[in-house]
Amino acid sequence: MNTAPTPALYDALLSPSSVAIVGASDTPGKTTARPMEYLREHGWTGRLFPVNPARETVLGERSWPSLSALPVVPDHVFVLTGADLAVEAVRECAGLGVTVATVMADGFLDGDERGGARRAELREIVGTSGIRLLGPGSLGVAALGHGLALTANAAFAEPGLGQGGVFVASQSGSAIGALLSRGKEMGVGFRGMVSTGNELDLTLGEICLASVGDPRIEGYALFLENLTGADDLRAFARAAAERGKPVLAYKLGRTDAGARLAVSHTGALAGDDAVADALLKDLGIARVRTFEALLEGQHLARGLPIRAPGARRPRVCVLSTTGGGGAMAVDCLAAAGADLPGPSPETVRRLAEAGIAAGHGALIDLTLAGTRYEVMKSALDVVLAAPEFDAVVAVPGSSARFHPELAVKPIADCAGGGKPLAAFVMPAAPEALRLLRSSGVAAFRTPESCADALLAVFGRRMPAEAERRRRLRAPAAASEVLDEARSYEVLGGAGLACAPYAVVAAARLPEELPVAGPAAVKILSAEVPHKSDAGGVVLGVADGAGLRAAADRIVQAMAERLPGVPAERFLVQTMARGVGEALVGFRHDPDAGPVVVLAAGGVLAELYRDRSVRPAPVDAATAREMVGEVIAFRALAGYRGAPAGDLGALAEAVVAVSRLAGTDGAAILEAEVNPLLVLPEGQGVIAVDALVRRESEDRVE
Amino acid sequence: MNTAPTPALYDALLSPSSVAIVGASDTPGKTTARPMEYLREHGWTGRLFPVNPARETVLGERSWPSLSALPVVPDHVFVLTGADLAVEAVRECAGLGVTVATVMADGFLDGDERGGARRAELREIVGTSGIRLLGPGSLGVAALGHGLALTANAAFAEPGLGQGGVFVASQSGSAIGALLSRGKEMGVGFRGMVSTGNELDLTLGEICLASVGDPRIEGYALFLENLTGADDLRAFARAAAERGKPVLAYKLGRTDAGARLAVSHTGALAGDDAVADALLKDLGIARVRTFEALLEGQHLARGLPIRAPGARRPRVCVLSTTGGGGAMAVDCLAAAGADLPGPSPETVRRLAEAGIAAGHGALIDLTLAGTRYEVMKSALDVVLAAPEFDAVVAVPGSSARFHPELAVKPIADCAGGGKPLAAFVMPAAPEALRLLRSSGVAAFRTPESCADALLAVFGRRMPAEAERRRRLRAPAAASEVLDEARSYEVLGGAGLACAPYAVVAAARLPEELPVAGPAAVKILSAEVPHKSDAGGVVLGVADGAGLRAAADRIVQAMAERLPGVPAERFLVQTMARGVGEALVGFRHDPDAGPVVVLAAGGVLAELYRDRSVRPAPVDAATAREMVGEVIAFRALAGYRGAPAGDLGALAEAVVAVSRLAGTDGAAILEAEVNPLLVLPEGQGVIAVDALVRRESEDRVE
Repeated sequence: MNTAPTPALYDALLSPSSVAIVGASDTPGKTTARPMEYLREHGWTGRLFPVNPARETVLGERSWPSLSALPVVPDHVFVLTGADLAVEAVRECAGLGVTVATVMADGFLDGDERGGARRAELREIVGTSGIRLLGPGSLGVAALGHGLALTANAAFAEPGLGQGGVFVASQSGSAIGALLSRGKEMGVGFRGMVSTGNELDLTLGEICLASVGDPRIEGYALFLENLTGADDLRAFARAAAERGKPVLAYKLGRTDAGARLAVSHTGALAGDDAVADALLKDLGIARVRTFEALLEGQHLARGLPIRAPGARRPRVCVLSTTGGGGAMAVDCLAAAGADLPGPSPETVRRLAEAGIAAGHGALIDLTLAGTRYEVMKSALDVVLAAPEFDAVVAVPGSSARFHPELAVKPIADCAGGGKPLAAFVMPAAPEALRLLRSSGVAAFRTPESCADALLAVFGRRMPAEAERRRRLRAPAAASEVLDEARSYEVLGGAGLACAPYAVVAAARLPEELPVAGPAAVKILSAEVPHKSDAGGVVLGVADGAGLRAAADRIVQAMAERLPGVPAERFLVQTMARGVGEALVGFRHDPDAGPVVVLAAGGVLAELYRDRSVRPAPVDAATAREMVGEVIAFRALAGYRGAPAGDLGALAEAVVAVSRLAGTDGAAILEAEVNPLLVLPEGQGVIAVDALVRRESEDRVE
Repeated sequence: MNTAPTPALYDALLSPSSVAIVGASDTPGKTTARPMEYLREHGWTGRLFPVNPARETVLGERSWPSLSALPVVPDHVFVLTGADLAVEAVRECAGLGVTVATVMADGFLDGDERGGARRAELREIVGTSGIRLLGPGSLGVAALGHGLALTANAAFAEPGLGQGGVFVASQSGSAIGALLSRGKEMGVGFRGMVSTGNELDLTLGEICLASVGDPRIEGYALFLENLTGADDLRAFARAAAERGKPVLAYKLGRTDAGARLAVSHTGALAGDDAVADALLKDLGIARVRTFEALLEGQHLARGLPIRAPGARRPRVCVLSTTGGGGAMAVDCLAAAGADLPGPSPETVRRLAEAGIAAGHGALIDLTLAGTRYEVMKSALDVVLAAPEFDAVVAVPGSSARFHPELAVKPIADCAGGGKPLAAFVMPAAPEALRLLRSSGVAAFRTPESCADALLAVFGRRMPAEAERRRRLRAPAAASEVLDEARSYEVLGGAGLACAPYAVVAAARLPEELPVAGPAAVKILSAEVPHKSDAGGVVLGVADGAGLRAAADRIVQAMAERLPGVPAERFLVQTMARGVGEALVGFRHDPDAGPVVVLAAGGVLAELYRDRSVRPAPVDAATAREMVGEVIAFRALAGYRGAPAGDLGALAEAVVAVSRLAGTDGAAILEAEVNPLLVLPEGQGVIAVDALVRRESEDRVE
């Protein structure tokens, strides 16, 4: 909700001087006893106040009857009671001036009546006081660097959990436990871990933003279930990027895509996970697809600058002491979208000088040269300096298990060489993984997570200025669909051309075609968004007689199929012919805000889900990147000798439509140009149908 | 090469009574000293003869000057020398009557002259004697159950390697080391491991076939780089399926797709990894995409029958004590193609009886019910008995790490319940993984490998009779392309209809159209496979005058573009119109033999690589499965109210074209119907262009 960093918030959340636990249990092992047990286990030295009116002591400490009975106002209160008591506790916290209250209880869903009422009550408390609320539904927070384990997550029962530089924020409480144990196994430690719960007040993005100035945080691992706090996430992502702190995210897929209804196809094309993907990319957040890459990719991202829009695919060198393992890495990297150019002649020459025979294939296999320190080290020195590679993946074989000094140590010794260096360790070799990670090399147990992490961190694009993307004010209750002619006017204002047209009245049809023929005659009515399906379009009209016949046919079809809709006006438009078709759409996503969608026209593009989505507006470089992402447009780039289309103009059209986000006056809620004809190279693009939905001008604010 | 099981071969390979090592080194730690060291380490008790003429003793054992000096003829000789000496050693083995010789040396590639000559020499020895050859380029074999570690693979230096029921055959030597150590880490042991090398004689398939009667083998893990021995693999796969022994395979991608040239587009569509995929599916081999699933999936496959063609997607129940982990499993399973129907009302009722509140969503999360043995056990009992699920994936959360008795033990206790049961363990919990695996539950560290393995084992289809698929004799040196009319004749013989046509001579054009118009007029010449590109097609011809004009245009176009090609005959064909188009192709893959390809017509199908491939011939159920795999055909199944096409007839056409493999007379090498028009439901399909290439009748055998 706030967008400026709030050090006080961060301190109260993760390094409070005093903590109270409301509903702390005296029974060891109970969920509500855990926070006190874990605080002791991890050496918390701050003040701790168990609040439990039914007990004299709790786990051997003095118990307090209420928050107001405490000798000081605690910085952070963890509320473990059921939902109704939790609301009362938060109200008490607010009255006392507590900085942060964390609520564990469930029972605040909008769906059921009680839940909705409790939610409203919490909102009212937060809105009328200075308190900040974490949760409800939060399992708590941890910052083991100062012994803070204010959490009921059973994973913190474990002693000896390492500290480190990764900050975890998770919308799933249980994911924190998994990251904690997996991090311990792989030698990755955490600076802080926050379970964000239902984010009624504090969002994941705001919490991370509050943390971003902490110099001990080296990178972020986010576990996302939704993107409801997208504006806060945007502000955080920008701040993290400015400080060079990488952000990796694992996001669960959306299952509610079908719930959204929209008048255009743009909704179906951009209604799924693609929007989340586009938003994360736009924010410079590396979205990993494999859970393991969320932690394993941290080392890889550190020090690797975020790239500009339009940056090429990463060119990766694979170097192995195992032919099979090297080939697996090549396979997985290629499948994930990496470029594997193989060494240049100059690199081959330098390798030969080091006694290593390499071909020009994607894999440099050192098996024949021998699994020795000097061989791997010299080979790495050569390829890390070779300008044709953006990153190097080393694949040590069986020797890694018991003889890391042979092929693993040289990789560790090359860490920090200015070029991202990763290792996929082919055998089970926990020691080798630890050695590599402690040296700063990203080390992977599987070729899939290695490729996933590498492509994700290289796929990051510098986040746009937070100011550039403003969520529109809450969508209006009422909206209106514009007819085709008014839609063209809106799009024309944004700079998009359409085929020449004239509007004619059914009652006064002209003698001659009002535009150059052959023409399409279409019903002009905001009430008929799908004109063809309704029989409202006649193609190939050559002259005035044809126009009259077409009008008759349309009037008749409308009378039959949509009897309530008057057929009073027609749009007569010169028929144009392109070498290809596109769909360019614009809509408001409830989470991500305005997005622009580019797809090929037609049913196949829909079936293949072949489209590119970005938060709007986009710049020219991003629009060109989008054109490159739609597979169908390869057919317009001179594929198999077919005529090339004006893909540059298509990118410009994407920019134009994406700017509808900033249109003055009544907000554009949704727009779709479908089809947008792509003319031969140099001749531009031209709209031959369009649909715009905007807020009603007479809406009630 | 042989297709019948050869027990003698298997015994000599993996339980020989005597072994000789040619080129055994006396220097501990050297690669050539390893086999002797490893045999000792793993307790080999059979006879062992080091052969090294330069030494009196080798590692303390009597050294023999030559193979012929040995007191007995060894069953298995491992040759560690360089390439030239290895050829001599194999010749000596053959002369002595050795059953199997394994050659480690490289230097036998067809590419270089020396290598080609050595290869030819080995072939000659094998062809003129009874010896069987493993390699060259083999790192050896291991069967630790009787202490046989006849291998130079450094991974066998490790003591205490477990035994078990998995048989590994690998075309990559180094992959064996990785599987060995990873197997040890996860408690999977091996019955035998074979590095097959270059497969000059013994193929991976033949070795596995020889092993298939071993009752201690419970399943197979194959690491494949190519499918050169496809016929042997087929025979093995059939034998393994008959014995209920699952076969899982990890296959590296092909990078030589571009090397294959073909006159039709079928080559481009089926020239890549899709053929390997189709072949493995046809053989009932579960192809996994993640390396870890190759071992982790073994438990899942055991006892799960291979399904019939056309079997539906597996319906999977996900049950978790971690909301985040459960959602990750659902996400990954859905992405991999599983069906996640959620519990039926009856199942919800039974869960409620057990005190568990479940919705109808894809995930049954037990978090609220509590992480307790009884909760997980009762929930599992209900869903394992529920008819709406084919498999269950349980996802224990953080408790799995230190309290496996809560949510892990009940999963282990449900093993063997008649329905496949897998677990994705969310935290790092090695003990939980071991407990599950030792109980027979497939346990996975990542949701990705869990989904991968589950879909792979459910995707297995009963392999066809080995007899049904015969590789044609070696392709003829000479082949001929048939013109369109002769191509129609071949396809008509197979049962495929084409649009009515007549052949007319340029010199004697008829007065009237010889078929119902409007017609297409096309040059008829085997020398012009791409007629449209050459200007050899005129569409929409209405009458005799149109025919003459069309003929003139074609003659002129040909004179300009293909001056050497006479335009003497035309094919005049009634223009038909379908609701969709397909491409049905047939070709010979050098590895897999005849394959049939189904794709949507047009450039987009090619760009999207949207096609289905199978070894030919296929039956009706498989053909229908293929139609279902091509995404574009969803547009012909009544999508968005569009007219439905006759997809049943399309499947029949696929069957017909696939049967060209069995055509008598000169073999059909390649065929393509493109486009095959799909008519409205009930009206069939009809070819409007075709191309057939077959062996020349005058070819030299």
